[in-house]
Amino acid sequence: MAAPSILFTRMRETSPLVQCITNYVAMNVAANVLLAAGASPAMVHAEEEAGEFAAIAGALTVNIGTLSPTWVAGMKTAIAGARAAGKPWVLDPVAHFATTFRSQTVAALLDLRPAIIRGNASEIIALGGGQSAGQGVDSGDPVSDAEDAARQLAFSTGAVVAVTGAVDFVTDGERSVRISGGSSLMPKVTALGCSLTALVGAFVAVAPKQPFEATMAALATFAAAGEIAERGAQGPGSFAIRFLDSLHGFRSESLEADGRIVAV
Amino acid sequence: MAAPSILFTRMRETSPLVQCITNYVAMNVAANVLLAAGASPAMVHAEEEAGEFAAIAGALTVNIGTLSPTWVAGMKTAIAGARAAGKPWVLDPVAHFATTFRSQTVAALLDLRPAIIRGNASEIIALGGGQSAGQGVDSGDPVSDAEDAARQLAFSTGAVVAVTGAVDFVTDGERSVRISGGSSLMPKVTALGCSLTALVGAFVAVAPKQPFEATMAALATFAAAGEIAERGAQGPGSFAIRFLDSLHGFRSESLEADGRIVAV
Amino acid sequence: MAAPSILFTRMRETSPLVQCITNYVAMNVAANVLLAAGASPAMVHAEEEAGEFAAIAGALTVNIGTLSPTWVAGMKTAIAGARAAGKPWVLDPVAHFATTFRSQTVAALLDLRPAIIRGNASEIIALGGGQSAGQGVDSGDPVSDAEDAARQLAFSTGAVVAVTGAVDFVTDGERSVRISGGSSLMPKVTALGCSLTALVGAFVAVAPKQPFEATMAALATFAAAGEIAERGAQGPGSFAIRFLDSLHGFRSESLEADGRIVAV
Repeated sequence: MAAPSILFTRMRETSPLVQCITNYVAMNVAANVLLAAGASPAMVHAEEEAGEFAAIAGALTVNIGTLSPTWVAGMKTAIAGARAAGKPWVLDPVAHFATTFRSQTVAALLDLRPAIIRGNASEIIALGGGQSAGQGVDSGDPVSDAEDAARQLAFSTGAVVAVTGAVDFVTDGERSVRISGGSSLMPKVTALGCSLTALVGAFVAVAPKQPFEATMAALATFAAAGEIAERGAQGPGSFAIRFLDSLHGFRSESLEADGRIVAV
Repeated sequence: MAAPSILFTRMRETSPLVQCITNYVAMNVAANVLLAAGASPAMVHAEEEAGEFAAIAGALTVNIGTLSPTWVAGMKTAIAGARAAGKPWVLDPVAHFATTFRSQTVAALLDLRPAIIRGNASEIIALGGGQSAGQGVDSGDPVSDAEDAARQLAFSTGAVVAVTGAVDFVTDGERSVRISGGSSLMPKVTALGCSLTALVGAFVAVAPKQPFEATMAALATFAAAGEIAERGAQGPGSFAIRFLDSLHGFRSESLEADGRIVAV
Repeated sequence: MAAPSILFTRMRETSPLVQCITNYVAMNVAANVLLAAGASPAMVHAEEEAGEFAAIAGALTVNIGTLSPTWVAGMKTAIAGARAAGKPWVLDPVAHFATTFRSQTVAALLDLRPAIIRGNASEIIALGGGQSAGQGVDSGDPVSDAEDAARQLAFSTGAVVAVTGAVDFVTDGERSVRISGGSSLMPKVTALGCSLTALVGAFVAVAPKQPFEATMAALATFAAAGEIAERGAQGPGSFAIRFLDSLHGFRSESLEADGRIVAV
């Protein structure tokens, strides 16, 4: 099993091209997160080119935050292109339970076999068929309440499932870990979860056969960078800036700290 | 009449879900402003889901900054959903006078009875049928020149009308107030006006029967947070960051300062 | 030949209205860059209004970063409006070589005679028919490798061509200059190149008959502001903030420093 620090170094040294189909709120943030971490983002979504582009990218991430029919068509084309080229793709099912359009879209996307699914607790609980407390895009449930749903979702889809929040949970159905760290200011900055999905894409691009390890490494990087960023932050505005600085100056040794990742 | 500080506390404690249909430039800023202030933003615009979502949101805000026909369809669907569910909606008629498409869109939206209209002086003057000095999205007129047009617009539409600028003006046609504060750096940061519209949505979500008081409270919060943010700012970049920090750390007592809101 | 400092002063004093059709990632950044520099941005893209708006703007900039067919229609309408009104337009051919859709779109746009083309080295090399090392939106080639392609592109299109990177290169086919400055953190902040294209629009709006001088002045301003911003920056997050502050506080005298612009 590749240690997170090894994957981080590989990601930074190879600067993988990550195709992100994400929402309008997150695009700028996700691009800056990828650049700061060392990857190369590309926001390419149109049906006319998304599939062709997926073949040259190292990985694809799909986030349904701001959805419309033409974007759904682009997502499906991009996923088909990624699969045909043997590239992994990551699903971020933002608030999929909120409307019929959203839930039908996510059901169709799940059939296209994402390598990794990342969501908040409310999203993962609802994907597993449970009743979540979420209404909009912010989670109304603690991560611990979503662990069973995550395992079941991993079993039923074959995907690695990540539930992120105060303490993250990652499972491939058999192996599971909890990852601690981050900052209480993170939910106060929009699109950080969406940007984490993009970063998961950067890690799985350099470890396409190890989606579990890649997801762990991305989440651990985010959590560690968030801790560093919190020091001296005056609120969510300065936190967001410090977070990008922290990712840019991040050193792989920071991932070797004891206790951040705990197998369960 | 609920004091601004009471509405602020209610807004922060209940964290209302605010559906924002806004322009591409403003989405990220508006989401961060809502999160920092304590509300929960949701950017949901597609015709396929905007009306369904409006029923679960506390309020809807509609901003025409970057317009296209599919978005107009989504706006109308969302407004119909909000009205059917008895939820207030707020209109931000960005540069509506600049093109035929824009002016026709705003005329159609005005027929759908917004609870609140927020614009800059040029926008409100032109909505009242006057000749404004505005060309693009930045106002070419002082707020004081728009007060009569605002009163007339409030009479003719039944909406509360807010004109924002160096000194803001709010009227429901009978009662009127001026609100002072803010910073001269605010017009140098894009989308702060659009984000204020979103914040008005957060306040009216917790006081749907008091759109005049909700608008006053939102504008006073913005003005006070802007003053705090200006201290130590080196320019519009650092101001924008400090503004989010200031909103996040904002205390309702800051709204009780003498003289910020003056009845006229 | 108007000195850069004279054009900067003219731009700041007249605050030209610049219509930007740019990608979703760049919109907010480009608007803030224009506001900080002293111009007035307007993001108006829909086919229904883009041409009408182009007649009132001082210049138009078109960036293909996040492309879709409806946006291409809006770009063409806007360009037709700008040309009919005698206004210059600037092309930013982001990653045009990456997909068939992109390369066909850029070929069609080139036929509409941009006054200025700004790209990174990989983009300009590929526009000239050469083989670039670029894959996504980040350049894989040094600027120096693109100088011949830039001259040929200027000859064949009649446009001023700017290649930006560690040292920029600008040519109208006969005259050529190199511009030094900036910061190694600039490529780590997304959409700064796109925002520079918008700033070129602001300068050519006040010097429509001098696209070569306007481009030089915009690039020199960006390079000088980048140098100032780098001092004290902790990474790309704080750099981006300081860059806006630096543009806002920028003084024309900073453009008179010896050696920034060298004729070649």
